Amino acid sequence: MKTSAVLAGTIAGAAMGTIAPKNVIFVVPDGLAPASSTIARTYLAMAEGDSTPSNPGIMPMLPVDALAIGNTFTHSANSLVTDSAAAGTALATGHKTGNGILGLLLDGQPVGSILESAKLHGWKTGLVVTSPISHATPAAFSSHVQDRNNFNSIAEQQIGFSHPLNQSVDVMLGGGRCNFWPNTHSDSCREDKIDLFGFAKEQGYYVAQNRSQFDDIELGKGEIRLPILGLFNDADLHYEADRKEQDEDVREPSLSEMTETALNALHRATHCKDKGYFMMIEASRIDHASHAHDANAHLWDVLEYNKVIEIVTQWIDEHPDTAMISVADHETGGITLPGGWDPRKLIGSKHSAPMLAEQYAAYEGDDKDAFFREEIMAPYGLGDVSDSDLAELKSGDVGANLAEFLSARAGIKWSTGGHSGVDTTLYAYAAGEMGEQLKVDLAGAHDNTDIPKYLEEAMGLDLEEVTELLRENW
Amino acid sequence: MKTSAVLAGTIAGAAMGTIAPKNVIFVVPDGLAPASSTIARTYLAMAEGDSTPSNPGIMPMLPVDALAIGNTFTHSANSLVTDSAAAGTALATGHKTGNGILGLLLDGQPVGSILESAKLHGWKTGLVVTSPISHATPAAFSSHVQDRNNFNSIAEQQIGFSHPLNQSVDVMLGGGRCNFWPNTHSDSCREDKIDLFGFAKEQGYYVAQNRSQFDDIELGKGEIRLPILGLFNDADLHYEADRKEQDEDVREPSLSEMTETALNALHRATHCKDKGYFMMIEASRIDHASHAHDANAHLWDVLEYNKVIEIVTQWIDEHPDTAMISVADHETGGITLPGGWDPRKLIGSKHSAPMLAEQYAAYEGDDKDAFFREEIMAPYGLGDVSDSDLAELKSGDVGANLAEFLSARAGIKWSTGGHSGVDTTLYAYAAGEMGEQLKVDLAGAHDNTDIPKYLEEAMGLDLEEVTELLRENW
Repeated sequence: MKTSAVLAGTIAGAAMGTIAPKNVIFVVPDGLAPASSTIARTYLAMAEGDSTPSNPGIMPMLPVDALAIGNTFTHSANSLVTDSAAAGTALATGHKTGNGILGLLLDGQPVGSILESAKLHGWKTGLVVTSPISHATPAAFSSHVQDRNNFNSIAEQQIGFSHPLNQSVDVMLGGGRCNFWPNTHSDSCREDKIDLFGFAKEQGYYVAQNRSQFDDIELGKGEIRLPILGLFNDADLHYEADRKEQDEDVREPSLSEMTETALNALHRATHCKDKGYFMMIEASRIDHASHAHDANAHLWDVLEYNKVIEIVTQWIDEHPDTAMISVADHETGGITLPGGWDPRKLIGSKHSAPMLAEQYAAYEGDDKDAFFREEIMAPYGLGDVSDSDLAELKSGDVGANLAEFLSARAGIKWSTGGHSGVDTTLYAYAAGEMGEQLKVDLAGAHDNTDIPKYLEEAMGLDLEEVTELLRENW
Repeated sequence: MKTSAVLAGTIAGAAMGTIAPKNVIFVVPDGLAPASSTIARTYLAMAEGDSTPSNPGIMPMLPVDALAIGNTFTHSANSLVTDSAAAGTALATGHKTGNGILGLLLDGQPVGSILESAKLHGWKTGLVVTSPISHATPAAFSSHVQDRNNFNSIAEQQIGFSHPLNQSVDVMLGGGRCNFWPNTHSDSCREDKIDLFGFAKEQGYYVAQNRSQFDDIELGKGEIRLPILGLFNDADLHYEADRKEQDEDVREPSLSEMTETALNALHRATHCKDKGYFMMIEASRIDHASHAHDANAHLWDVLEYNKVIEIVTQWIDEHPDTAMISVADHETGGITLPGGWDPRKLIGSKHSAPMLAEQYAAYEGDDKDAFFREEIMAPYGLGDVSDSDLAELKSGDVGANLAEFLSARAGIKWSTGGHSGVDTTLYAYAAGEMGEQLKVDLAGAHDNTDIPKYLEEAMGLDLEEVTELLRENW
């Protein structure tokens, strides 16, 4: 079959740049699978409604369900299965690159991102994530390094310490404190004395490192202004499954809380101005849970992503000069739901598997079996398993055992510990006529590199321009 | 998270029935997976272009890619994983029913289909498939039985021999002759003497049972009029992988050929009239190939489905009073594409696995190993495997062995021999303003039962009315 006549690598039928939003919100559910929404929706129907596997009824729609509009192709410049660095670079810059590379082409030359271009054109910018802020996806929008694991270099670029264009991110909320502390700090990951928190303060950043400092951003309202750097864990923020169980006064901010705070801060800084804001929000840890085949951690991070989408769509209804696009960078885990799968098996599971494995490893008491049954298995929804299963579960890698056991019970299958090559679903939302135009523009399938090109036109930006500037200062 | 405020079970944001097409084409790729398009697109890029796994480049778009617009939920009234009967009933009638049931609710009462309602309102109707015409999906649009395996009863209803509303299908093209022949015919599957081909002729049907009679429909043009019954195999039509290798003069009609012929016949019968046609086309055997984990048969039936979509979209551009919706009834096989998957391993594979297994079983010569290597493995793209692999391949279920071996080589993973519960992609197309309105109406996620409800409004039909008529005559 000849396909040469078929649209190749372009946004099908789109009149590019026909919308002109003042503000753009880009949400990346890292690793979200086609099956993820089916799991979350069905779980809610059974946990909160009277749906059962033998009488499912009509499912409630997730906030993101109604926003589906097409698909994206996710392969990278050097692999049919991308990693988050190459996929992030594609979504941020409109260029394919190799797995592991951030903001550079295969030849090592930098390419500018939609966030950097927005900043250059007078927009305010934000990154809100649950991974370290220097992790692949946020890094793809704000740094240029050969190796995604150069977290320290990435942090330096993100805060404007060593970025060719200086400071380009006005709000950063997430995890990853350790890359910002000098090696004199006990929790630092750095090998040098560079103090990026200190540098940030010198540059006028409000720096938050815990719940109360985070709350102050909202409480202080007009008092606390951009730029803002809020990092609430040395590494990743907790899985939502674990975070929601933390004591309230020390509980880490959730992705939806950080989203609201960032929206308010960016809105306060721009609502009287011509230029608005560009914000990238990443539900970072859906991916991590899928790598670990942890169905419960996956579920709760998918639900939290949907809470973010609900907040953003309500925000857009109140601020109709704003448009949102959401798309996963790739699928993780190769999740499928064969006959017999049953989301009710996830009801009662409170925590992530690795958190429980850690608690078990730390236990020094006398009755390991009782502790394992009551404090480890029960909180993972496995309070009713047999003694022989208990023995198997607590030998070897406890976290992996719990995850595989719960997945097997729920009939959720994973085909890989890595990513897969399937297309990801594209979601978009704007209010009124802009919303209708967005559907007409974005319906269909797109290479992942086409998304920032569409935003470039819609936002009146120039990615080539920022690429040239980066290369002049490289 | 509360979801009660979120749209439940309705077409999100749709102003129902805002399009008013004269003709509607509904295409069901049975069992099409989210991964199916990724496989087909990438195969084409590598078989026909210079794409490789380590340098994939920008992929060509499949004809269906550009038409993605949302998703559908596929669960049935009694299972999270539907079968084709319940899913077909949902798509045809707007009602959930139990697995295995066709055109009836769980209480045994019939519900009318969009095809039956169209017929009642003066539209011409068509069913074009590659399975037996009495198989679940076409049967859901044209019959009402408790058990999808009652193929003989279904055939009787479809031809108007025993349907409560008499004859409702004007064009039927596909397989399944055996249910139409009386038990006096050597290839009959009937246990009675009912001759449905004879009955069809009495009712004025043009009956075609082979390639030359099929060709006559086109050659005869205006001479051969509706109704038309063309069945070209006793059971399923061949997989496209096998059909394309048949001798030209006896080659079964392909799904795309039957589509063109049906479109022309329906167009000739309606183009001077107020009312147009409703046609359901099913790429039936994507599903069968996935049940068998036969990656090559799957690939070629997915490519043929895309050829049908290409023909239909071109037809619509020339006949802009026509709208198309396409959606899979469910996913089959739980297909995923983990890192390392390589579609180049499918290049050179000509046939389906079961056809080759049949040829091997029929071989009566002396050199079984040579025959197996040259006539079985080579045409399945496995000409280069080791002697020990050869020994393994030819022991036990040869067809299954070949399929699993090729899938493993290509790195294509299947998680089940049955269906899975993931959402399926919704595709739609119309030209010009109707096309834009269709995108606005259908963007988002929908329960599968919402699709015929949307068509009911768009076509000005009344599903309740036909249901009442059916019940009066039940």
